[in-house]
Amino acid sequence: MSFFPSVLDELIERFASLPGIGIKSAQRLAFHILSMPENEAVGFADTITKAKSTIHCCTVCQNLTDKEVCGVCSDPRRDHSTVCVVADPKDVAAIERTREYNGSFHVLHGVISPMNNIGPDDIKLNELVDRVVSGDVKEIIMATNPDTEGETTAKYIARLLKPFDVKVTRLAYGIPVGGNLEFADDATLSRAIEGRTLL
Amino acid sequence: MSFFPSVLDELIERFASLPGIGIKSAQRLAFHILSMPENEAVGFADTITKAKSTIHCCTVCQNLTDKEVCGVCSDPRRDHSTVCVVADPKDVAAIERTREYNGSFHVLHGVISPMNNIGPDDIKLNELVDRVVSGDVKEIIMATNPDTEGETTAKYIARLLKPFDVKVTRLAYGIPVGGNLEFADDATLSRAIEGRTLL
Repeated sequence: MSFFPSVLDELIERFASLPGIGIKSAQRLAFHILSMPENEAVGFADTITKAKSTIHCCTVCQNLTDKEVCGVCSDPRRDHSTVCVVADPKDVAAIERTREYNGSFHVLHGVISPMNNIGPDDIKLNELVDRVVSGDVKEIIMATNPDTEGETTAKYIARLLKPFDVKVTRLAYGIPVGGNLEFADDATLSRAIEGRTLL
Repeated sequence: MSFFPSVLDELIERFASLPGIGIKSAQRLAFHILSMPENEAVGFADTITKAKSTIHCCTVCQNLTDKEVCGVCSDPRRDHSTVCVVADPKDVAAIERTREYNGSFHVLHGVISPMNNIGPDDIKLNELVDRVVSGDVKEIIMATNPDTEGETTAKYIARLLKPFDVKVTRLAYGIPVGGNLEFADDATLSRAIEGRTLL
């Protein structure tokens, strides 16, 4: 039984349903909303509605955008023959931050994960194949996370694209920059030795 | 510089402005909102607006309510001559959960805190004095937190109400039930000895 007005309970429940927010945090957040100036709270609500209604997937690369085609895909200065495949829009942001990469992206919105009942049809894989089939793409850089599911997805896609005239590459594994050999895990160290390069 | 659509950045900023939410959590929450079904996201936004517009302070006890007078204050079965004074609506909920208390409440919405520039006029203290002046109140139970500011506020209120014919009491201090003497802090243990009762 609760001792708050029902709409406050509802607000607390809504916050508690978000990932990583427990009931105590949800209470604190709900009370914070109540203590906000009216226009700020309404602005928060409006932003949620607006974000939900205007943001969707880019028709080319499936990254999130509020336009039909996202900024990267519509930029003529970028190299659209190279496609970096990532699992998540956040990974696009991470790669863009490096300012090293001038190609385009493809966002899978997930990875193949039999444990979680996510198969190849549940991620944006057909859209990637369509891009390859329609020509122009020369290199696919697999940039899924270096964990079991990311690896599996990368290998699956590489095999899927074998019949096409496209080079499929993978991000390099190794010791992180600024990392410490002593504390590197065995798997990373093995891959770093395996992938050693000429100085 | 950000690589997300601007409305998504705005949503992330809104979440990041909430207490205890860092930028990474804010991103995760914003992406969660985008992955929600449309009606759930709109429902979230509506709940924020509705909570903000319908919830206000009870005209008697200043607890949060969506009615003019809250459920406790309008309940004729409760003892309105005993008023438990708390700092926060969450404290009302905590005391109500015990099902031990049948009096009414008064919510200060804060404690006196010179460090944070919060004086007696910044909390709902005048409203409490008005309740005492208008008669009927026989006992005030101070239930502010047992920290410096809560203590100061309790003592300040006790002195303020001295001229009136009202008993001012304080919640008991002591070892928490299920607690361990060995791990009790000195201050708590001192207060437990001082406040010992006859078996």
